[in-house]
Amino acid sequence: MITVSVIGSGNVAQHLIKVFSKTTGIELVQAFARQPESLLHLLPYEKITNDYQKLQKADVYIISVTDNAIAEVSEQLPFKDQLVVHTSGTSAISILDSKNRKGVFYPLQTFSKNKEINFSSVPLCLETEDETDFQVLEKVAQAISEKVYRISSEQRRSLHVAAVFVCNFVNHLYYIGNEVCDKNNVPFEVLHPLIRETAQKIMELSPEEAQTGPAKRNDTKTIDQHIEFLKDSKYQDIYKLLTQSIQDVSKKL
Amino acid sequence: MITVSVIGSGNVAQHLIKVFSKTTGIELVQAFARQPESLLHLLPYEKITNDYQKLQKADVYIISVTDNAIAEVSEQLPFKDQLVVHTSGTSAISILDSKNRKGVFYPLQTFSKNKEINFSSVPLCLETEDETDFQVLEKVAQAISEKVYRISSEQRRSLHVAAVFVCNFVNHLYYIGNEVCDKNNVPFEVLHPLIRETAQKIMELSPEEAQTGPAKRNDTKTIDQHIEFLKDSKYQDIYKLLTQSIQDVSKKL
Repeated sequence: MITVSVIGSGNVAQHLIKVFSKTTGIELVQAFARQPESLLHLLPYEKITNDYQKLQKADVYIISVTDNAIAEVSEQLPFKDQLVVHTSGTSAISILDSKNRKGVFYPLQTFSKNKEINFSSVPLCLETEDETDFQVLEKVAQAISEKVYRISSEQRRSLHVAAVFVCNFVNHLYYIGNEVCDKNNVPFEVLHPLIRETAQKIMELSPEEAQTGPAKRNDTKTIDQHIEFLKDSKYQDIYKLLTQSIQDVSKKL
Repeated sequence: MITVSVIGSGNVAQHLIKVFSKTTGIELVQAFARQPESLLHLLPYEKITNDYQKLQKADVYIISVTDNAIAEVSEQLPFKDQLVVHTSGTSAISILDSKNRKGVFYPLQTFSKNKEINFSSVPLCLETEDETDFQVLEKVAQAISEKVYRISSEQRRSLHVAAVFVCNFVNHLYYIGNEVCDKNNVPFEVLHPLIRETAQKIMELSPEEAQTGPAKRNDTKTIDQHIEFLKDSKYQDIYKLLTQSIQDVSKKL
């Protein structure tokens, strides 16, 4: 049995609390929340604290707070020589206070409040300074997910940049597509199979092989019609920039 | 039994030939290809012609060629008063020659040469000038797909613009994500679950609810780090423009 405590009450913290609570081989000792009531729907009162001094012994302390607060929270911990990890995609391992042993436990997934996550397919990117600590963290990770990776701080930084493109920016393109549909009285669901297939295709083909559309075909007539159709100058700029970028890739091939 | 002939030998034409060949209730009479050998892996020699004069009688003639060639192909057909449809997302129904009855049979999906398609979930967007023709086309569509929509030329134009955003541009963001991973020795497959979940989420949440990431959180420190990390000025421009656009949406909410 490995014991774990979660420090934080945000989106990722809550998803971790949920999955640890139901995982055999892991005991969730406590959760720390400045406002304990924010976690009462997940844990009994006696398992939640807002006082660092009351944190009990655990094999791993997982700090899951906003990037700006990680350093400060790790400083405030009243113990030393324990394994303390953060869950951030952007912060280096070194941001943690040196009085404890450091690690990173980064779940690479998009967590929304109103959407359940199947943790078994969430990639967990692990880093520690010490090999024994890595093995402990790996056991925790393998208990909840089938996809566990050893990823350095530098690699994690690049993964996070890539994740912004393939998730956050992709979702914004869905937003624009949805808006274009709404304005023209077409149900957005007509596009759902296309969205699904576009994502599915990238698991089997390279992005170059998977690329289709007017930019790839250099179909300037369609491109010009689309730009005119859009009217909104910001969407026109996005259309032009991404079209140009696709064409630059095609030229390289 | 409804009889169908496909005119064209490109990507979409080949997918249609494949699905019609194995669909009960539909008889594929012929396919027209300028180079008949390009279809020999799909059809026996006697079912392929490169001579318009040899096109036999069918209930529906489906012209599946590049947009620029649709008008000319429809003019060259040696018969009149038949149901002739095209498969284009961008061209209006009116582009077809008026000697025949016009229609559109637009499969809204991304077709790649090396990737099989399950046609039953491909949305088919239909349009005709005549209601009886619509019923014929609807029967053909329903024989191969569960998702059949009546979509006007104007609606189809907007759908095609939206499709460029949610498919072609999305795939290009996958390309950039892949490149960032490659340059930093991280396997792109680490991002596969995130890509899948981002697409899945949009079936359940609105794009506004589904939006996450530094732009949404207005995390300027991370945004600046990412822009610096990217180095490539074109990718920096894409990052800035999409970040700005996400923030403009957040302000409106």
